[in-house]
Amino acid sequence: MGSTGPVMEVIIAKSAGFCYGVRRALDTVMETARTEGKRMYTLGPLIHNPQVVERLAEDGVRVVKDLDEVPSGGVVVMPSHGVPKSVMDRAQERGLEIVDVTCPFVAKVQNLAAELHEQSYQVLILGDAGHTEVRGIMSRAGDDALVVSDADDLELCKLGRKVAVVAQTTQTLEAYTTTVQTVAGRTYEVRGFNTICHATSERQTAAVEMAQDVDVVIVVGGRNSANTRRLAELCSMTGVPTHHIETADEIDESWFEGAKKIGLTAGASTPDWIIEEAARRIS
Amino acid sequence: MGSTGPVMEVIIAKSAGFCYGVRRALDTVMETARTEGKRMYTLGPLIHNPQVVERLAEDGVRVVKDLDEVPSGGVVVMPSHGVPKSVMDRAQERGLEIVDVTCPFVAKVQNLAAELHEQSYQVLILGDAGHTEVRGIMSRAGDDALVVSDADDLELCKLGRKVAVVAQTTQTLEAYTTTVQTVAGRTYEVRGFNTICHATSERQTAAVEMAQDVDVVIVVGGRNSANTRRLAELCSMTGVPTHHIETADEIDESWFEGAKKIGLTAGASTPDWIIEEAARRIS
Repeated sequence: MGSTGPVMEVIIAKSAGFCYGVRRALDTVMETARTEGKRMYTLGPLIHNPQVVERLAEDGVRVVKDLDEVPSGGVVVMPSHGVPKSVMDRAQERGLEIVDVTCPFVAKVQNLAAELHEQSYQVLILGDAGHTEVRGIMSRAGDDALVVSDADDLELCKLGRKVAVVAQTTQTLEAYTTTVQTVAGRTYEVRGFNTICHATSERQTAAVEMAQDVDVVIVVGGRNSANTRRLAELCSMTGVPTHHIETADEIDESWFEGAKKIGLTAGASTPDWIIEEAARRIS
Repeated sequence: MGSTGPVMEVIIAKSAGFCYGVRRALDTVMETARTEGKRMYTLGPLIHNPQVVERLAEDGVRVVKDLDEVPSGGVVVMPSHGVPKSVMDRAQERGLEIVDVTCPFVAKVQNLAAELHEQSYQVLILGDAGHTEVRGIMSRAGDDALVVSDADDLELCKLGRKVAVVAQTTQTLEAYTTTVQTVAGRTYEVRGFNTICHATSERQTAAVEMAQDVDVVIVVGGRNSANTRRLAELCSMTGVPTHHIETADEIDESWFEGAKKIGLTAGASTPDWIIEEAARRIS
């Protein structure tokens, strides 16, 4: 009575949360769903955040795994990380109404890959072969295109005389420059394009800087979001206890015992309302 | 009497001596001088070997420093390492007869630099800024072209958004790939061309391999020949005593005391007769 507990401060990292491409995708889809009142189908989750996908379902936006699940006359949404060219072609053949919210930075890599292939370059994509973004780029890069997750992967690759390197937008600069270097040592001509999105590196740098100044870090975002998982990984590498949560409900009071400063950051697909709720809950 | 001294073996490295470009230059000039009997003038030494230049003088081939020293009606020889574009233009304006023995590999780099400049790339030349070959490439690469001797030099350079890297034909692969990597980290697009001449790297590899198997190394070639000096440097780095000579006259018996195997190699501008004379003298 009369005594107050220690004051705990919550610091939100700069550049936490939505990137341009995700915000644009969500705004477009919500706007279309509400004003036109049409049934919409996204090919896979629109963005990698289950809570956002749930909200969209309330507005009549359903997730489908395959184009065949979209009924004739339906509206199909191509998600922010893009789709393979064959999917886009098939949607057009079926005469479906298409809402394409592919992130402009991703679309740029897709177009670049197609152009380079046309100019007779063997296209090398630095990225995660299983990621939707990479599959979309790959589908436009020609039959001799390759995906590597890092420069070491190149050892087993057969390279042509003219090789062009592009990167998944969420790669690190170091992985990109090392890949270009390795290719340079093995071909006559290498052409490298730094297609890494600034938002990702800025978010990562800001999170690591913040982590060094706090006692506990909370990273908010979908468990299916690769960039959120990477963010948590980078923060925990600073040695500060780090917890990856999807929603405020997962917060455990015991994490904050003795802590004075709590740092909060969030992946590119985490909406502001989830970040704000987490901040409120901690306080 | 009756006893024989220890047998000394002389090993000549693979790929020692003349490279394709040098041999071609010399053959062309000697052929022209002898058959046409014309007074010929080379802009600087035809190749970086004083003994060869002396022999050419006997055939009426003189070395001049400047185009103005060539009399009207004279034949001017553009040497194997190439000349700046302005020199070529001026020779044509003066109506001089031109014998262009620029090495085809060097000419390829010159043309590439010009093409890349036309395609709006900033051209970055990895090489020795003072070397005639580099000055010739530079003169075709546009006003914003740069020369760096290694990747560290790049720190002070202002780079554009599209940068193309070419290498002096005698550079090492490592210096080239590191330069491309560094540029990749600082521009949107990097384009790298491995313009390094195979002859150089093959000669260097063969010399180092040989050095590891002998007691003394003799490197024969002009003291003004950069690639010969580099060859001597590489051999002495193996820890084996290494001597750089221009002619057999410089050989000192004391170098071979206790030695059983003597290794011999020579720069790209060293003629066979000088190598053979050195081998004879050692034996």
